[in-house]
Amino acid sequence: MDKIRVSIVGGSGYTGGELIRLLLFHPNVELKQITSESNTGKFIHKIHPNLRKTTLMKFCSISEIQECDLLFLCLPHNSSQNKIDTFNKLAPKIIDLSADFRLSDPSEYEKWYGHKHARPELLKEFVYGIPELHRSEMKTANYISSAGCNATASILALYPLYKNGLADEERTVVEVKVGSSEGGNKINEGSHHPERSGVVRSYAPTQHRHTAEIIQELSFNKKINIHFSATAIDLVRGLLATSHVFLKDNLSEKEIWKIYRDSYGEEPFIRIVKESDGIYRYPEPKLLFGTNYCDIGFKKDEFSNRLVVISAIDNLMKGAAGQALQAFNIMHGFDEKTGLEFSGLHPI
Amino acid sequence: MDKIRVSIVGGSGYTGGELIRLLLFHPNVELKQITSESNTGKFIHKIHPNLRKTTLMKFCSISEIQECDLLFLCLPHNSSQNKIDTFNKLAPKIIDLSADFRLSDPSEYEKWYGHKHARPELLKEFVYGIPELHRSEMKTANYISSAGCNATASILALYPLYKNGLADEERTVVEVKVGSSEGGNKINEGSHHPERSGVVRSYAPTQHRHTAEIIQELSFNKKINIHFSATAIDLVRGLLATSHVFLKDNLSEKEIWKIYRDSYGEEPFIRIVKESDGIYRYPEPKLLFGTNYCDIGFKKDEFSNRLVVISAIDNLMKGAAGQALQAFNIMHGFDEKTGLEFSGLHPI
Amino acid sequence: MDKIRVSIVGGSGYTGGELIRLLLFHPNVELKQITSESNTGKFIHKIHPNLRKTTLMKFCSISEIQECDLLFLCLPHNSSQNKIDTFNKLAPKIIDLSADFRLSDPSEYEKWYGHKHARPELLKEFVYGIPELHRSEMKTANYISSAGCNATASILALYPLYKNGLADEERTVVEVKVGSSEGGNKINEGSHHPERSGVVRSYAPTQHRHTAEIIQELSFNKKINIHFSATAIDLVRGLLATSHVFLKDNLSEKEIWKIYRDSYGEEPFIRIVKESDGIYRYPEPKLLFGTNYCDIGFKKDEFSNRLVVISAIDNLMKGAAGQALQAFNIMHGFDEKTGLEFSGLHPI
Amino acid sequence: MDKIRVSIVGGSGYTGGELIRLLLFHPNVELKQITSESNTGKFIHKIHPNLRKTTLMKFCSISEIQECDLLFLCLPHNSSQNKIDTFNKLAPKIIDLSADFRLSDPSEYEKWYGHKHARPELLKEFVYGIPELHRSEMKTANYISSAGCNATASILALYPLYKNGLADEERTVVEVKVGSSEGGNKINEGSHHPERSGVVRSYAPTQHRHTAEIIQELSFNKKINIHFSATAIDLVRGLLATSHVFLKDNLSEKEIWKIYRDSYGEEPFIRIVKESDGIYRYPEPKLLFGTNYCDIGFKKDEFSNRLVVISAIDNLMKGAAGQALQAFNIMHGFDEKTGLEFSGLHPI
Repeated sequence: MDKIRVSIVGGSGYTGGELIRLLLFHPNVELKQITSESNTGKFIHKIHPNLRKTTLMKFCSISEIQECDLLFLCLPHNSSQNKIDTFNKLAPKIIDLSADFRLSDPSEYEKWYGHKHARPELLKEFVYGIPELHRSEMKTANYISSAGCNATASILALYPLYKNGLADEERTVVEVKVGSSEGGNKINEGSHHPERSGVVRSYAPTQHRHTAEIIQELSFNKKINIHFSATAIDLVRGLLATSHVFLKDNLSEKEIWKIYRDSYGEEPFIRIVKESDGIYRYPEPKLLFGTNYCDIGFKKDEFSNRLVVISAIDNLMKGAAGQALQAFNIMHGFDEKTGLEFSGLHPI
Repeated sequence: MDKIRVSIVGGSGYTGGELIRLLLFHPNVELKQITSESNTGKFIHKIHPNLRKTTLMKFCSISEIQECDLLFLCLPHNSSQNKIDTFNKLAPKIIDLSADFRLSDPSEYEKWYGHKHARPELLKEFVYGIPELHRSEMKTANYISSAGCNATASILALYPLYKNGLADEERTVVEVKVGSSEGGNKINEGSHHPERSGVVRSYAPTQHRHTAEIIQELSFNKKINIHFSATAIDLVRGLLATSHVFLKDNLSEKEIWKIYRDSYGEEPFIRIVKESDGIYRYPEPKLLFGTNYCDIGFKKDEFSNRLVVISAIDNLMKGAAGQALQAFNIMHGFDEKTGLEFSGLHPI
Repeated sequence: MDKIRVSIVGGSGYTGGELIRLLLFHPNVELKQITSESNTGKFIHKIHPNLRKTTLMKFCSISEIQECDLLFLCLPHNSSQNKIDTFNKLAPKIIDLSADFRLSDPSEYEKWYGHKHARPELLKEFVYGIPELHRSEMKTANYISSAGCNATASILALYPLYKNGLADEERTVVEVKVGSSEGGNKINEGSHHPERSGVVRSYAPTQHRHTAEIIQELSFNKKINIHFSATAIDLVRGLLATSHVFLKDNLSEKEIWKIYRDSYGEEPFIRIVKESDGIYRYPEPKLLFGTNYCDIGFKKDEFSNRLVVISAIDNLMKGAAGQALQAFNIMHGFDEKTGLEFSGLHPI
Repeated sequence: MDKIRVSIVGGSGYTGGELIRLLLFHPNVELKQITSESNTGKFIHKIHPNLRKTTLMKFCSISEIQECDLLFLCLPHNSSQNKIDTFNKLAPKIIDLSADFRLSDPSEYEKWYGHKHARPELLKEFVYGIPELHRSEMKTANYISSAGCNATASILALYPLYKNGLADEERTVVEVKVGSSEGGNKINEGSHHPERSGVVRSYAPTQHRHTAEIIQELSFNKKINIHFSATAIDLVRGLLATSHVFLKDNLSEKEIWKIYRDSYGEEPFIRIVKESDGIYRYPEPKLLFGTNYCDIGFKKDEFSNRLVVISAIDNLMKGAAGQALQAFNIMHGFDEKTGLEFSGLHPI
């Protein structure tokens, strides 16, 4: 079978780098071009030093991009929506890893991003990029918008409960603990190592934009609310979401097990992690570095109807490049795990 | 003025070590004896290496303890309650840093600790050790029970709201992020560095015992509920509590400022930290290493009635030894800051 | 082609876990059995949680091991030498990852390990496990003794200089900076997170046993000396060796480049890393987590004849399981990179 | 007694911040003014958040500096030498914390700093700022040049050996492991947290400028050589120097003990740390955070004449602000420990 010819627009960031790494090892992909306006002509491995001796490709400019089968867009927010026609002329299929096409409702976009969307009529063309929720649409999709990392971990944690109408839709509090790679590779005062090291920084106690995605994906019968906060900790990769859900009915842990197993039992990248002994009883992000897994665990409060759901991902993998590749595999009928086999390291 | 003659029972742990350090530099204290059954006869600095060249004291056994003015008890949980009469014969005043005498209601003790209290009739004799709530009782107290570290950060964050009846008493979710020193100095599989390093470990998603203290201290007119979870992160000292409060009335940030200022404006160890720019906009535990401060900040959700309150302490200082010394100062009429002047380090 | 039937003796440690992971994904290997006396009957993933959903194998006892084509021995030091006959009856080929068969001279073994070797006559049967030095012997070997992690990084850094007689053989100082996984998975006072976190611990300023291997492998015409020290830092995986070599002749950096290129130009797992700009100018262990690379760089002192050679590896990969698998591939005529393709992550 | 009126020029950096903290708590100091051109008019605690509630002072401009008794200069390198006359008109005494006046020989300055010194005739006016070597000169000095942090740890480790002519002066290799605060508070690509976190970065394998100070201070009878390298690790504060010394005579550890005790037995800020058991057998920088100690330990190689000397300091304290204050105390006849009593924290 011919390989799928693929190019990456915006390959110098952390998400772009992760995607390059994955695509170079994908047996059904021919990686054609990778753009970076600030690094045109440089070897890829000057920016992504893990790829030394893996590739001798160089960055090119967007203006040099040639026709191909599919474009991955890894541009900063608010870029894709302004250049989407250009990209669409180059490739019939597009997977956008920015936040530009995640929200289907233009008014929600404006509410959370503070400005009007440049191409509101296109929003409904994009499939939201979580395969566990939208696999069937992905199979025939030409446009996929990759989900936010915090949103991915939160949605996957809550989806079985919300889909089955089990949660009090007004009360859920979600708190994510995130690493520094989530902020991208642009330096700033807050990312200076002596300041950033060892922090427990409340960087978004309220108004985090990923909240909008969570609300969108979990509103089944009526629009729900999610109380979301994000705290940055001394980690580079990985995130843990702790979701405090108030159950309508006082379900047992056994019943909750069944609900999660029914939703995710066949999923290749979801693991239910809940053990009564050992060191790793609940999901642990460090075990997921480099993998596409979302690990999910839970604990029922014995004294109330609160259910604490714990979910972990690698923000650059299941939270970005890995999930985009999973969607790519689905679009093309490949085994969903192709190129995503890495099992993670222990200890790390 | 004569110095207060003080001894420490159980001085080999982290809390005991911190207390030794503080007392050695306190101008009104004569530190007489320090016990450790497993280290009897050893120099203090063999166990607490920061005290090399500061003291040549040695550990003795409990059986050697002599009469003094005040005993600090730093024993493991469930020890003080069984030996309290012995200790009381040695000293008229006692500050207990364990969890034994924190709850005034014996049935609550049994509910959260899983066994009957050995001396339930004494529970009401102990003043709960947060000076900001119980300063006046402390001035004449003979028995003080130091508060739990997670409880201290949570209670101080929520007290102004609960005292003034502003919070929905059923809905508050508190999530603390804690360091490894909270687990004490006993080694275990989970504290092995290759496993513990880099974790975001949900070690107590529900049923954390400190919850009982928070409920006790914040129940003014009726018994409230608190939904508490604790996550261990890659930190040795320090904790951050993020409290998600749902306000009965939709207060502005300005009104909330006023409420906190009214409660804490004169407090020597509470700082309201809330800035609109810079790196350190909200409380940051690493800035508090070695200090007795509790830093508190907050952010009102623009889209709901949720108020996120953020509080940080050093768990071994304001969460243990420092707060105990603050109470000691109050009991004896000393300036509350005596021996607690250290301002913390930056960067760290 | 039939797969090679392989079993692992001692699979519960960090090296064993890494080897399991690699073998499970090796296309030419059938992993038959994995032993652990303390975990017999447990799922592999209870001990190696990264392998959840990858395998449902369980640990068995050594007594249950069946005949196979090759045994990997991952036992603690001083075990293999006492059971080698038993293992040899089970498999014609053995790769031992312990230190038991690394030194070919029994008197050197006794000098560094403090006791007589149980089977000194077998020492010369084992090929020392660094492929870059012993590839041709490996092709026909039945017994391979995997090299020490610190030794591997040091030897690979120095080999081109010593082989070509360029270094003052009495003066080289090697200092390694190592992570906590090097100490294995047994807990101890020094590995307790509050103590081990943030250390710069001189754990072996002198007399490190790996010194003996370095001396053995770099003594070409006469016996050399190496001044070796090891410092433990706040890292789980990875090690960096800094070697201070005093050149007999005042070679230029260009000449040194040529020497390293001549030695390693064709090596699949050695990369010369030396850049004049960018963030990663010299080898960096964190870029190697999970990979089998040894990265080597150098800098010539402008004011003296000192050459500083910097080398980095993942101690569990090129320093243990990865290098063992590389040797396995050579023994069986497989492409040397089979099962070792992972390129490492960035950022991490 | 009247307090000494002191001002700080260049107070926004890490060294300046540490000095502010120390001076605010010094009983014999009146801290008058603190300059920062980029932060004029801002509260000190906006830049040094640990000083919230400790001071309400604000930064002023250099042009506003008034006459005082002593100026501390914390400017970037190559600033003091160009403005020294201006500063000298304002204060009769100056302690310069930059590198400008550390080397007494102008040709050495030019060799290591790459340009001619602006005021070579003044170099000999400054006393090199390590009290353990220059206490008597400091007592009458008006100008002190604070020593480099790496130089301080290295010189104090080696001084007893070199002063007594015991070391082979051509062979010593010194390798320091340093934290990120040593690089100052200016952000750069290499200090971005996702890149800087977890590094073992060979940032100065050769040609580190502090080498010149070490050579200067340890050349007693003839000019010596030092082979110095610096590696940056994942630490904010603190440094450990490992010095590999080749002894002329094969001294026993007992003899070496005596040599160090003779040199440092009376020193308030030097501790010999060398224990045969326990966790902290050698100097450990994390125990020194916030203290002015230099801890020194050693180990003699049993198989050669190598002596490994290990020394640790807090680079911002004994390596900068603390040592400057120690010198200040000596200049003014105060107890050397005044304002430097903090004993450090454990655990941390």
